[in-house]
Amino acid sequence: MRIMTLQAQSGSCKIALGESIDNLKGYCEGAGNVVVITDSNVRRLHGERLKGFDIIEISPGEGSKTLETAGEVFGRLLELEIDRSSFIVGVGGGIVCDITGFAASTYMRGVPFGFVPTTLLAQVDASVGGKNGVNFKGYKNIIGTIRQPRFCLCDFDLLRTLPKEEMRNGFAEAVKAAAIGDAPLLSYLEGNWKKASGLQRTAIAKVVHDSLQVKMKAVSADESERGERMKLNFGHTVGHAIEKATGMPHGEAISIGMVAAAGLSGKKAGLEAKEAQRLESLLKEIGLPTALGAKKDEVLEAIRKDKKRFGAKIRMVLLERIGSAVMADVGLEEMEAVVDDMC
Amino acid sequence: MRIMTLQAQSGSCKIALGESIDNLKGYCEGAGNVVVITDSNVRRLHGERLKGFDIIEISPGEGSKTLETAGEVFGRLLELEIDRSSFIVGVGGGIVCDITGFAASTYMRGVPFGFVPTTLLAQVDASVGGKNGVNFKGYKNIIGTIRQPRFCLCDFDLLRTLPKEEMRNGFAEAVKAAAIGDAPLLSYLEGNWKKASGLQRTAIAKVVHDSLQVKMKAVSADESERGERMKLNFGHTVGHAIEKATGMPHGEAISIGMVAAAGLSGKKAGLEAKEAQRLESLLKEIGLPTALGAKKDEVLEAIRKDKKRFGAKIRMVLLERIGSAVMADVGLEEMEAVVDDMC
Repeated sequence: MRIMTLQAQSGSCKIALGESIDNLKGYCEGAGNVVVITDSNVRRLHGERLKGFDIIEISPGEGSKTLETAGEVFGRLLELEIDRSSFIVGVGGGIVCDITGFAASTYMRGVPFGFVPTTLLAQVDASVGGKNGVNFKGYKNIIGTIRQPRFCLCDFDLLRTLPKEEMRNGFAEAVKAAAIGDAPLLSYLEGNWKKASGLQRTAIAKVVHDSLQVKMKAVSADESERGERMKLNFGHTVGHAIEKATGMPHGEAISIGMVAAAGLSGKKAGLEAKEAQRLESLLKEIGLPTALGAKKDEVLEAIRKDKKRFGAKIRMVLLERIGSAVMADVGLEEMEAVVDDMC
Repeated sequence: MRIMTLQAQSGSCKIALGESIDNLKGYCEGAGNVVVITDSNVRRLHGERLKGFDIIEISPGEGSKTLETAGEVFGRLLELEIDRSSFIVGVGGGIVCDITGFAASTYMRGVPFGFVPTTLLAQVDASVGGKNGVNFKGYKNIIGTIRQPRFCLCDFDLLRTLPKEEMRNGFAEAVKAAAIGDAPLLSYLEGNWKKASGLQRTAIAKVVHDSLQVKMKAVSADESERGERMKLNFGHTVGHAIEKATGMPHGEAISIGMVAAAGLSGKKAGLEAKEAQRLESLLKEIGLPTALGAKKDEVLEAIRKDKKRFGAKIRMVLLERIGSAVMADVGLEEMEAVVDDMC
C-alpha cells in the first residue's frame, strides 16, 4: 500500500494505492453517518463488500449524469439525514464519481466525500483532481464544481471484474499522462502494459502511480485549469468532438484524439515523426482505435458545427517531444485537415 | 465612494460602497460577454440603468430559488454563449444574488461573477460572504456552494425605490451585526437609524459599512462556517423556524429570533436584562416585530417537529454582552420555553 497526497487550493486528497475496499470505514473516521453512492452494476459485483453502509443507487451510464439524478440523490441524502458531519463515498467509475462529487460539493454547501474508483479510467484519472459535474442539454460536464475528495481509495483487485474494453479505456489516459509529462512511463508502458492489464501487482501499481503523479503535479499547480492543468486535455479537443458525434467511449475517443494531436504536434511543435509513431503503435497494440474510419464524416461535421463556439483559433495541447507538452493556437482548418488526413 | 476588500479562502471580493450602478461596466473589465441576472421587479424599476447588457430575467420571490430556475438560467447562459471568459452580474435582492451565485459557481465549474444588491438586506448581509444556494423540498438553501463574488457594488440610491418594510428587513441584519460584534454600532443605530432609513448619505454609508465589517471579519476567519462565522446566525435558529412555519419575511423573523436568543442569553450567557431590553426596544422602534402573537403555536409546533433534526441539544449563538457573541448548547426544552414565554 502506498499513500500519495494531493495538495490543491480547495483542499487536500489522500490517495491510497493498493488499499483494500474492506478498509473503507477507516477512511471515513470521525464522521457520523456514512453513505455510499454507487450504480447497479457495481453494486451487483461488489455489493457484498459494502455491507453496513447506507446505499444510494443510481442507474449506470452517461445518461445518469444529469441535474435530475443529482436532484434524486439530494432527496435521498435528506431522507438519510445526511449533514455536514456525515461522509459521502462514491464507489464506481467516472460517472459515479462525477455525480457523487457534485452532489457532495453542493448539498449543504459541501459535505466531506471520498471515492473508491472501480475502473482503471477512474483510478488513473477521473477520481483524482476534484473536478466533478453533470451534463446539460448535450454539453458534457457543463455544470459542476472543483472540490477535492478527502480520499481516493484505489483497490486494484476491484479491476478483476472489469471488461477488457474498459481496461483499454483506462490505458488511454495512462498513455496520455506519459505523453505529456513522463517519457519513462511511456517506455514502461511499451514494455509492460500487458502485465499491468493482467493486474500483475507491480505493473498495475506503477502505471496508476506514475499516471497520477503527472495529473497531481498539474492539479496542484493549477487547480482551476487556467494554465498547467490544461495540458491534461491532450487528445481531448478532437476526442470530445468524436465522443459527442459518435458516442464512442471516452478512452477510445481520446486515443484517436491523441493521434490527431500528435500529427499536429509534428507540424507545429516539433514532435519527431518517429515519436508520434511510437505513440500510435502503443495505442494500437493496447487495442485502442487510432483512426476514424467510417465515422470521419460525422466527426468533421461536428467540428465544423462547433466553429462558432471554438472561434477561429483553438487552444490545443501539443507535444514538443514525448514527456513535454505545450499549449498552441491551432486554426480550425488545420484541425480539420489533420482529422481529414487520418485513415 | 469607499472600497472594502474581503479576503477569504475561495477568493477575494471588492466591495464598493456608495458607488453608482452606472459604473458597473468598469467592474467587469477584461471580460468578454457580460450578462445580468435580475428579476422582473428590479428590471421594471432599474432596467434603464442596465441598457447595453444581456439580461436573464427570473420571477421575483422565494419560489424562484429552485434547481429548476437554476436549470433555466443554465439554458440561457448556453444560448448567450457565456463561458469562463465572460462575467455574470446579479442585480437584485438576496434571492437574485443567491441564484446568480449558484449558477455562476457551477456553470462551467465557475464563471466570474459580481453583485449589485438592490435591497438593504442584500447590501448589509446577503450579497457578501460567498454563500449561495437554492431551496429543495422545503429546506432553505440546502443546495449551494461557497464562492466569493469578484465585486459587490452597493449603490445606496437604488434603495430609494425600496418599500418601507423592505428597509426594516435590512435593519434587522444591521442590528444583528451590532449585537454580535460592534457595540458602538448599536448605539449609533439607536441614535441614527431614522436618518439611515431616510437614506441620509453619511448615516446609510456608516450602517452598511460597519455591518459589513462585522460580517467580513467572521467570513475571512472562517469562510466555510465551522466556527467564527456561525456567530452570524444570531437570531437565526428561532428565526428560521418562524420563517418556515409562517412565511414571515427574513428580517422580521430574525428580529423575533433575536429577542428569543437575547432572552436565552440572559439565562445562559450573562447578558444583562437592560441590554436585552435595549435590543428589543431598538427593533420595536424600527418597526420590526418582537413577539409572535397569534403565530406562537405554529412556531412551537414547527420547533417540536424539527426535534429529530435538531437532536436534544441545539448549538446556538448567545450574547455575553452587546458586541460579543458566544456559542452555546441549548436544550430544545429551553428554547421552547423561551419562545413560549414571549408575548
